[in-house]
Amino acid sequence: MINKKRFIAVIGGSQPSPQEVQFAEEVGRELAKRGALLVCGGLGGVMEAACRGASLEGGVTIGILPGESRQAANPYVQVPIVTGIGYARNLAVVKSAQAVIAIGGNYGTLSEISHALQGGIPVIGLNTWSLSRNGQQDNSITIAQSPAEAVNKALSLAI
Amino acid sequence: MINKKRFIAVIGGSQPSPQEVQFAEEVGRELAKRGALLVCGGLGGVMEAACRGASLEGGVTIGILPGESRQAANPYVQVPIVTGIGYARNLAVVKSAQAVIAIGGNYGTLSEISHALQGGIPVIGLNTWSLSRNGQQDNSITIAQSPAEAVNKALSLAI
Amino acid sequence: MINKKRFIAVIGGSQPSPQEVQFAEEVGRELAKRGALLVCGGLGGVMEAACRGASLEGGVTIGILPGESRQAANPYVQVPIVTGIGYARNLAVVKSAQAVIAIGGNYGTLSEISHALQGGIPVIGLNTWSLSRNGQQDNSITIAQSPAEAVNKALSLAI
Amino acid sequence: MINKKRFIAVIGGSQPSPQEVQFAEEVGRELAKRGALLVCGGLGGVMEAACRGASLEGGVTIGILPGESRQAANPYVQVPIVTGIGYARNLAVVKSAQAVIAIGGNYGTLSEISHALQGGIPVIGLNTWSLSRNGQQDNSITIAQSPAEAVNKALSLAI
Repeated sequence: MINKKRFIAVIGGSQPSPQEVQFAEEVGRELAKRGALLVCGGLGGVMEAACRGASLEGGVTIGILPGESRQAANPYVQVPIVTGIGYARNLAVVKSAQAVIAIGGNYGTLSEISHALQGGIPVIGLNTWSLSRNGQQDNSITIAQSPAEAVNKALSLAI
Repeated sequence: MINKKRFIAVIGGSQPSPQEVQFAEEVGRELAKRGALLVCGGLGGVMEAACRGASLEGGVTIGILPGESRQAANPYVQVPIVTGIGYARNLAVVKSAQAVIAIGGNYGTLSEISHALQGGIPVIGLNTWSLSRNGQQDNSITIAQSPAEAVNKALSLAI
Repeated sequence: MINKKRFIAVIGGSQPSPQEVQFAEEVGRELAKRGALLVCGGLGGVMEAACRGASLEGGVTIGILPGESRQAANPYVQVPIVTGIGYARNLAVVKSAQAVIAIGGNYGTLSEISHALQGGIPVIGLNTWSLSRNGQQDNSITIAQSPAEAVNKALSLAI
Repeated sequence: MINKKRFIAVIGGSQPSPQEVQFAEEVGRELAKRGALLVCGGLGGVMEAACRGASLEGGVTIGILPGESRQAANPYVQVPIVTGIGYARNLAVVKSAQAVIAIGGNYGTLSEISHALQGGIPVIGLNTWSLSRNGQQDNSITIAQSPAEAVNKALSLAI
């Protein structure tokens, strides 16, 4: 039964470092092993590495695409959602998840982190953004040191 | 392998007639039997009846929701996508499909038919809208007389 | 005071017939003369002709654009709104108006008509779509025979 | 001519501190005096204070609303844009501007800052978020110490 499973989003840049690619793939593998469904933005980089990892372990991958065509999905996306709403799909990526794992990332990833925190969805960070507001540290992003720790924290914090 | 399967959207009103409910459930059953994945708006009425039918035959159901919470999904939605973009999710419902089956429906359904036709996605109609433009009949909606015929036509026209 | 004025949307295709261009320009002129603000999708064809008409009479024109850049606006748009959400901006065009005038148009226009009717916003049609549902004529679109009549009806029906 | 003017977005929380309210009102006043058009999310708090300031100086205010009704706009919004797309309208707020002034703010404001930086739109900050990525300070937000300085910087950096 798919519908008893956890939905976890993996977010991150389309031009990741080699370490970020490795982290993303391990996060994907680990999510699949633990029976969670992977939600992502459906494109390349961190998204593709995470989908590849999940697919290798027989997991289900959902890619919420910005454009008008399913052809843009990376080859490991099994359920492509075609939104046609551009970067506004970033909201759907995080709001469709019960927890979010952020790996590296640029401003697009930061927008996803923001939308998740705004909606009360836990965010676990691996080498990603940190925030302070008006000079004070904001500790809303839960830090993880490894892919396995990130997945553990995501599953235990999932809403 | 999910990703070799067809994605077919079923659209229609949230307050269907008894016949429309029966049609939707049969369409859902038939899609599942034929191995297609069902995409819909995730709420009640035609959407719920189609998801129920698909679930009864072991099919996969995807509900693309307008609001901010997965709780709004009908109980037969297995993959809830939470968009938070209101009626703009109507676009994502049809653009995520390779063909669309419209059953009855009100103006929301008509907007989905329009977005599908605008995007070149085939629309099959069961007791639904018909259109004319500037006094001339528009025959872009393929008419079906029964749920089985609608599913046959959707699968053969799917892009 | 801008904020006591009526907001009226003008919708229609990007490749209109010569008569539709003339109608759109006259509708734009007439709206400006009557002190209404023109809302549209900001691009070419009917949208541009309506904005040109309104500008020639000193009216205010608002263009709600689908893409990521204000450069795509036609030269008569004074207030470009850049949404980045593609065709989902069609909703914003009609929901930002108190009445909608549809001139000709293709499936994109039909989606705007649908979203307006779904939201209870009056639609006045000039040579545009007509609808029937399950074999019965739907008379929700108020027919006008001339640009002046369309503007009169839009202003008197505006919510 | 409206269309030769600058469009500047003012973003910030709906529950601002008294100082943030004062900053927002002064930013609004200053933008109006300098002939710029004010774009905002159209609701309360920083958005309302900025619109009030601009209105007091005869400026034009544009409110891009998340919901389905223009009634939600604060009383100083002259051009209400009704999007119906929820928080996805945050993108439209910043993409419709040539520079963005952020005053205080919570995660919604942070999402707007992110979308602006992602789109190459300059962001000027008054008592707002600061960012670091993977342990390194990100200086993309231009800091201002006063409303007048924020407006000066916004107008000089506007794209």
